[in-house]
This record gives sequence, C-alpha cells and structure tokens, in this order.
Amino acid sequence: MAELFTVLTVDAARRRLASHLGPRPAEEVELAACLGRSLAADVYAAEDLPGFDRSTMDGFAVRAADTFGASEGLPAYMELDGEVPMGAGAGGPLAPGRVRRISTGGMLPPGADAVVMVEYSEEVDGFLVGITRPVAPLENVIRRDEDAARGDRVLTRGMRLTPQDLGAAAALGRTGLKVFNRPRVGIVSTGDELVPVAAAPGPGQVRNINSVILAGLVEEDGGIPVFHGIVPDRLSEIEAALHEALAGCDLVLLSGGSSVGSRDWTARAIASLGQPGLLFHGLALRPGKPTIGAVALDKPVFGLPGHPVSALVVYLLLVRPLVRRGDYTVPPAFWPARITRSIPSAAGREDYVRVRLRAEGETLWAQPVLGKSGLINTMVPSHALARIPPAREGLEAGDPVEIYLLRGGPDS
Amino acid sequence: MAELFTVLTVDAARRRLASHLGPRPAEEVELAACLGRSLAADVYAAEDLPGFDRSTMDGFAVRAADTFGASEGLPAYMELDGEVPMGAGAGGPLAPGRVRRISTGGMLPPGADAVVMVEYSEEVDGFLVGITRPVAPLENVIRRDEDAARGDRVLTRGMRLTPQDLGAAAALGRTGLKVFNRPRVGIVSTGDELVPVAAAPGPGQVRNINSVILAGLVEEDGGIPVFHGIVPDRLSEIEAALHEALAGCDLVLLSGGSSVGSRDWTARAIASLGQPGLLFHGLALRPGKPTIGAVALDKPVFGLPGHPVSALVVYLLLVRPLVRRGDYTVPPAFWPARITRSIPSAAGREDYVRVRLRAEGETLWAQPVLGKSGLINTMVPSHALARIPPAREGLEAGDPVEIYLLRGGPDS
Repeated sequence: MAELFTVLTVDAARRRLASHLGPRPAEEVELAACLGRSLAADVYAAEDLPGFDRSTMDGFAVRAADTFGASEGLPAYMELDGEVPMGAGAGGPLAPGRVRRISTGGMLPPGADAVVMVEYSEEVDGFLVGITRPVAPLENVIRRDEDAARGDRVLTRGMRLTPQDLGAAAALGRTGLKVFNRPRVGIVSTGDELVPVAAAPGPGQVRNINSVILAGLVEEDGGIPVFHGIVPDRLSEIEAALHEALAGCDLVLLSGGSSVGSRDWTARAIASLGQPGLLFHGLALRPGKPTIGAVALDKPVFGLPGHPVSALVVYLLLVRPLVRRGDYTVPPAFWPARITRSIPSAAGREDYVRVRLRAEGETLWAQPVLGKSGLINTMVPSHALARIPPAREGLEAGDPVEIYLLRGGPDS
Repeated sequence: MAELFTVLTVDAARRRLASHLGPRPAEEVELAACLGRSLAADVYAAEDLPGFDRSTMDGFAVRAADTFGASEGLPAYMELDGEVPMGAGAGGPLAPGRVRRISTGGMLPPGADAVVMVEYSEEVDGFLVGITRPVAPLENVIRRDEDAARGDRVLTRGMRLTPQDLGAAAALGRTGLKVFNRPRVGIVSTGDELVPVAAAPGPGQVRNINSVILAGLVEEDGGIPVFHGIVPDRLSEIEAALHEALAGCDLVLLSGGSSVGSRDWTARAIASLGQPGLLFHGLALRPGKPTIGAVALDKPVFGLPGHPVSALVVYLLLVRPLVRRGDYTVPPAFWPARITRSIPSAAGREDYVRVRLRAEGETLWAQPVLGKSGLINTMVPSHALARIPPAREGLEAGDPVEIYLLRGGPDS
C-alpha cells in the first residue's frame, strides 16, 4: 500500500490536500465569542469613525486663524462662549474671536477647526480667555473620518481575532462577526501499548498522551476535540472507529501506535474510507516522516506519527491551518533568529529542531535542545521549533534560521 | 487629590501594588481545562519515564556485545527468540547469542541492552537472524528514566500551560493540575459620551469599545470578565458601581471617561474605597500616563485611561500579570528587533510605539505605524509594541528595540 505513494514535501502535501477540500462553512457569532476565532469575511466600515471632529485634549475649541501670532507675552484674548458637553452636540457655530471650553473626546462646534490645550491658556474674570500659543488648523483634533472612513476595510478575512480586533468591530457597531465554524475534530488513538492517562501503566505500556496534546491544540485553534478512545491494533476495530469518527466529525486525526502492525493497519483503514482516499504516505520531514494524509467524504483525515514530538510538528504544519480556517491560504508564522550551533540535515528534507530562545541585543539566539526527543526533556523546555529548509544541508553556528513559536514568550 | 501622588515608573508602580497584595488562591483543575491557565505549583515526576527501557526503532533486541564485529560481509548470525508484544512485558531474559523481534515503543527484555534496526538484519529460515552492523550499548533505546527521572521538576510554577505541557503532565499520570484561580474582573465604564455597542451614537457620542477590548484581554488571560455597565459622570453613581464591583470581583478596572470631570470623579471614587487606597496617580508612561492604581479590600483597582490604545498598554504592563498569576514575579515577554526609523522620546519616561514587523534575514524590523493613535488605523494593523526604555531619549533608525507581541504572528 505504502509503496504506491512517494514521500512528499510539506508544501506538496498542502497543495494535494487543498485540491480536494471545499470551502469551510462560516457562521455569525456574537462578538465576545469571536475571540481567537478566524474571520471568514472582510469587515468594512459602514460609517465614518469617530463620526465627528473630536478633541484629543482638554482646552478650548477655536478657529485656528484667531490664534496666529499669540504668545505668552502677547496672548490673544477671546470671549468664552460656554462649554461643549460630553456626549452631546457641540451647540451652535463658534463665532470668530470666540473660544468654547472642550474636554478630551468632545465634539468640535461648527466653525472651530482646532483645540488649544488648557496649558496654553489663561482665564480672565470667567468670560475672557487668553491664548498664549498659536495652533494650526486640525491641531489636537481627530477628524470625523480619521480613524476609519466609510467603506474602508477594517478587518481582513482569515485573521485570528484579538481583543483589539473585537474593539474595532465594536467601534463600527458590529455586535457579531462572520467567523469560520468550529470544526469537530475526531481523535482516534490506536496502539496495544496505550493505556488511559488515569491508569497505572503495566510493563511495556505507556499513557495515551498524544490525545491530550492534540485535544489541546485543537482547542487552541478553535476546534472541538471529540475523543474516540483507544482502539486496539486490529484492522476491523481501527476501521470501525475511523468510520464512526468520519461520520461525526469534520476532520479526523489518527494518533498511531508505534508498532509495525499498528502502522500498517492505520494506513489500510484510512485507505478503506473512500474517494479520493490516501493522498500521501510519508513526508520529506523530520520529525514527522511516517505521516498519512487523506481526504474522504470531503473531510481531511491524518494518520499522525506515534511519537508526541513528531505528531506535534505535523499538526502545526498541516493540521492547524485546516482547523483554524479550512485552507492553507495564510502561511504559518515564522520569526527570524540565529542558531547557536551547527546542525546537520539531509538536503531535500525539511527539518525542525526544538530550541530555547535567548535575546542578546538585536539578536534572538536559538539554542537547540539536546536529548533523545522525549516529550518532557525536550518539548517542555523548548520555546520554538527552528526550521532547516529542504534546500539546506544543515546550518552553521551563527546562521540565520526561521523559528515557529511554541509558547507566546518567556512569560508564558 | 492627584497632587498628593507623584508620577511613578511602571516598575515602581508594580512594586507598590505588589507590596499590598496577598498570594492568589489556587485550585485543582482537570487537565483539559488547564489550557492557557497559569500553574500554581511546581510539578515533579512521581515515577520514571518512560518507566522501562524502550526501543526507538523496529528491529531486534540484542546484547550489544554479540554484534561487535558484525558486517555485511560477515553477519553475526543469532537465534530468533520470539517477539516482544506491544503493551506487555518483554518475556524472559534474552540469552547470549539470541535476538528478539521488537517494534518501536516495545519493552527491552532483561539482558538486552540495544536494538538493531531491521534495515541491518536479514532473516534466515524464520529462526536465524543475521546482523550486518554492530550496535553500541543503549543504541536505539530510551532508558527507563531518560525522559524524566522520579523527583525531576517537570513543570514550573507560574508557567502558562500549553498543550505540550498538559501532555507532559498526562505522561506522569496527572489528570489534573493546581492552577491559579480564574479571577473575576469587574469592568466599570464611565463617561457621559459612551453608548452601548449596539446603539447608534448621536452627536458627540462614541460606542463603549474599551469594555469589549478589556473583556477580551481578561478572557485570554484566564479571568472572568464581569460587566458593570456604563455609569454616568456623577460621583455618587461611580462610587456605587465601584463598591458593587469591588464586592463581587477580585480585581476592578475602571475604564474612564475622557472629560476632566469624569477623570476627577474616578480618582475620588477610587480613593473612597478604603485602605490602603490610592497607590499612584499618573505613570511615567506614554501612552498611559493618566492611570490610577489602588488596592482596597486586598484587591487591585485600576483607573485606566479612556483612550483604547492607552488602556491596552496599561493593561498589558500592569493588569495582565495580576489576572494571570496575581503577582509580578514573571516579567513580560519582550523580543529583540530593530527599529526602521528614528523616534523621539523624553528621558525618564517609558514609551510604547505601535509597530508592524517584517523579517529580513536574521533581522526582525519593527516599523512604527503612523497615525493619530486611532484604534482602527493604528492598533488593528500593528503586530507589536516597541518599547523605548526610560533611560533613552528616543531611538535612531536601525537601533535595537524590544518588542511585545500583540498578535501570535503574521498568521494570526
């Protein structure tokens, strides 16, 4: 079975999967529930923002021309024409030679085109104000369409929504947004060696930790993890669990057992799902080579490597974009760094090395984490994955390297 | 009131707040619900991991010494002594001169100390195996305590838990972890100019977007946002809302109106809460100067600036650590970059400039986003905040600069 499929690059695997997948459904969701979800449609301003000429300072609304030539030695004295109330109209037009008191955020009255800061004014007898410094037109003013003009694109399809993005939508009066739906992601664990996390493993047994890691990743990416338990290494049982997961979910992850038998059954079970079926079996990727990709019932199905680190790498590169948005249109986020030591790699293969990060001046140093790729001794202390591209045969100490963050930063 | 308090640096403000705050309560939470929460107690390995000598390859368990001198020309022929089943004991001891078939993840039998990859073997008649390459002791084996040894510290107090951290906890058999509790964060909006997001603002009115942004930030940081509505600019009403919020929440954010009156009432209302009360009024920070910090009933209370960008900066620097962990022991995460253009700044003041990021070789360029600090035209397009430290009078183009990420990366 495996022999029919060549080892693909990650890019080629993405293209092959994408060519068999339709668009992800979207749904309108209330604003507060959009946090971390991916936007399914551009958002345009339906109105100008802030919508009126607005003061950015406490002081006096003026006609700028009235202040020209004013100085501390020779203030421009003008008549105080009341006060702009907060949250209401600014009142009638401001006549030449007059000023109106205004607070930060207040609306400029018709005729006024600038604000003099209170620091550059002196009040005399409660009805005269001396301006001690000239202002230019529009000084200390946000124009009515300065933050956004009607028709501007404010948020872009595909972006993951942050608190400030939700604030921008709220500023436009949006109480909800169209986001990609939360896909149900079936997680099927196979392997005779696996026991539940709560169990005490017997000889040769290990706890089923991949399902915990995958569920956490799916959750972070806005999906709904659906557990389908631990399935023994028998073709019929794997097939049954896989068909059940496919029927009830939008995407299926098989977290494979590590035995030869288990891996063979996984590939056969995936091949039994229907058209177009298996798309690749093996990636030019380390770790992550023994990965299976398929599409059936228009849904992506992945057979992930059994090693937790390998499963994580494959998830980040191939599965994450599909959980977040259903396509590969937004490339993964890599940051620049320098590698602290030489690392060998085979040409034609993309390698990912776990690294710790250390800032030094303007340089971010990526220090490979040594150890036999255990979860606890290499993954937990790592801040990022450093990428060795397929065209490179390894890196020299000091070489630039792209990194993919595994943690938000030193404080997370 | 304000005159009694000097303008503080952000660091001094942190110290002053911390000196009045007790430890944050913690709670035991089931593993799946710990994602993104901050760990309240170190986690140690209660057992060795993986717990048995484990094969990392498909092949044959051997005594390494039996393979010394083996080559393709002169294989070491040994008797096949059955197969190690997955997820079970490895069977009796492996006698010298024998091999036992083993899968990746299988348990080494007593006596065996290495694994020969199947690629370097040839089976003869089903009962003899020729080994064509020698292995060293422990080759292709993870030792029983190699991923973690009993007593090792595996997760550290204060860390925000990622999927891989939960996997590590699961590997140790932990089905739950002790995390800091989710604080209830009261959000009180004040300002006569504010209308609800769903409303159509009249002249001089703006939508209450700060509460949307703050609620999103609190949610991200593991807190529970509790809205206390929009309160008009009257001392009695602000006091009443503030007392109610303080009684029902663990931390209170007042999102201040921008008028002089509103700001004055906010300070007075906060001062009325009780001991120790106001700790600072004004920060050596831009944006974010008009910030009020207080502690009452052992709970932190902040009066945040009315401008959304200022409120965000203050939240990230002073409020976020308290929502996440209740203290300032873990410093905020800054990354190194270079600034693309010169930026002026006053010495003695910490400045934050919104920037877009662009990778070029090993350099991350931070490009200031120009514009009059509007939410939509400067915050939404920004990837990060660049920090100009208090000791610097601005930056020159090309200078190293520290950045604080506002988005996970280009793909988010």
